[in-house]
Amino acid sequence: MRLSLIGSGKLGQQLYRVFSECAEIELVQWMDRSATETSTAEGISIVKQVEELLEVDCFLLTVNDEVIGMLAAKLPTNSLVIHTSGATEISVFSDHNRRGVFYPIQSFSYERSVAFSELPIGIEASNSKDLKFLEKLALAIQAKPVHLDSAQRKALNLSAVLVNNFSNHLFTEAAQICEENKIPFELLKPLIKETVDKLDDLSPKRAQTGPALREDRKTISAHLSMIENSELKKLYTLFTNSITNHYKNEKL
Amino acid sequence: MRLSLIGSGKLGQQLYRVFSECAEIELVQWMDRSATETSTAEGISIVKQVEELLEVDCFLLTVNDEVIGMLAAKLPTNSLVIHTSGATEISVFSDHNRRGVFYPIQSFSYERSVAFSELPIGIEASNSKDLKFLEKLALAIQAKPVHLDSAQRKALNLSAVLVNNFSNHLFTEAAQICEENKIPFELLKPLIKETVDKLDDLSPKRAQTGPALREDRKTISAHLSMIENSELKKLYTLFTNSITNHYKNEKL
Repeated sequence: MRLSLIGSGKLGQQLYRVFSECAEIELVQWMDRSATETSTAEGISIVKQVEELLEVDCFLLTVNDEVIGMLAAKLPTNSLVIHTSGATEISVFSDHNRRGVFYPIQSFSYERSVAFSELPIGIEASNSKDLKFLEKLALAIQAKPVHLDSAQRKALNLSAVLVNNFSNHLFTEAAQICEENKIPFELLKPLIKETVDKLDDLSPKRAQTGPALREDRKTISAHLSMIENSELKKLYTLFTNSITNHYKNEKL
Repeated sequence: MRLSLIGSGKLGQQLYRVFSECAEIELVQWMDRSATETSTAEGISIVKQVEELLEVDCFLLTVNDEVIGMLAAKLPTNSLVIHTSGATEISVFSDHNRRGVFYPIQSFSYERSVAFSELPIGIEASNSKDLKFLEKLALAIQAKPVHLDSAQRKALNLSAVLVNNFSNHLFTEAAQICEENKIPFELLKPLIKETVDKLDDLSPKRAQTGPALREDRKTISAHLSMIENSELKKLYTLFTNSITNHYKNEKL
């Protein structure tokens, strides 16, 4: 599989690492606008401009959602073009007949090497031959290809925002409360791990506990009186109502 | 350590298990109102009424917050009385001079055996001798005693609601979106695990990613247009604003 990688953000760097280690993948060029070198430690050629990219079977774009269409318009129209965005439809590639999506269902950081082994990757392509190619590409890096159409991918991307971005923000708010009360945030780690490990045995719906589920108004109002931040107060109330309503019908 | 355990809910059952396995603890009686037997498989005497409890060094109450005070009022006033509630002040024991709190910072389910090894347990007592007793009790079950006063414990309990109850509710909402779009919720598991594993390397504040942080209005409005449930729509908006505001000052 001859391909070139475009973008050197969080995902671009991780894909560079696994692609360059994979015998089945021939990485032709890596476009990295911020590069100071002309080749990587592994000997892959680095370019800074889209015009410097050579024609290859496939271009994989790991750039910001807003520039996918603009960048793709400058790529050879015979090549397969692939983006990695959960929120972007495959139709963003308006100039190309051979289009694809390769969406790793994961959150990437500069600080951590993410394991691609067993990682679900949502794939979509405009023809069955290119879909096979994407399947092969995912399997080459030990990941798990999953067919998702654009609507499903967008729903999954929304779900990912809930489980990752929003949960993490709750951790941030909790860390702040701990700091204000001189409590190490570390004390919450076993609880946070259990919250996730429980999902191996129970659906999240079955795993729910706490004052909102019990409709324990005394604890709820004690908690509300402790929260100074008005946005967090609103979040607490909204969660409490949402949890209560979610389980109300089952109690009747 | 001679003690009797009161309550057979989620926490009561788990504490029964570890106490009955621990050589340093002599479990005298277990009060379980719903019991059909008069002793456990391990030979511990079961009683159904508080009046049947014999006088022991210490009574450990794992009952609902609302009945702690009422139940304690019926216990011998010379004994040490301990509750396990994160949301309840130590002063709930108004008739006893020897009061304590033993608050395991964890979420318990009937379906899962929680490991007490290394689990932080917030302890508080009205005198230093009883505090030592609670320390010894925590260490006997391999847990990690942490001194927390009533205000700190309540702050930690609020934090626990955020990281556990509210995160889990986000998982429930995500599972519902997946179901509606015929996507297996399983696909989100590696992402959920990574959300938590990241905390070993990064503070939650540093680990934040996503459209709200990037102020990516196109994705945010696309997500909002996909959400039908009005409470979830409000939650999405509130989280987005809260995340944006949280990081705003750092960008200036």
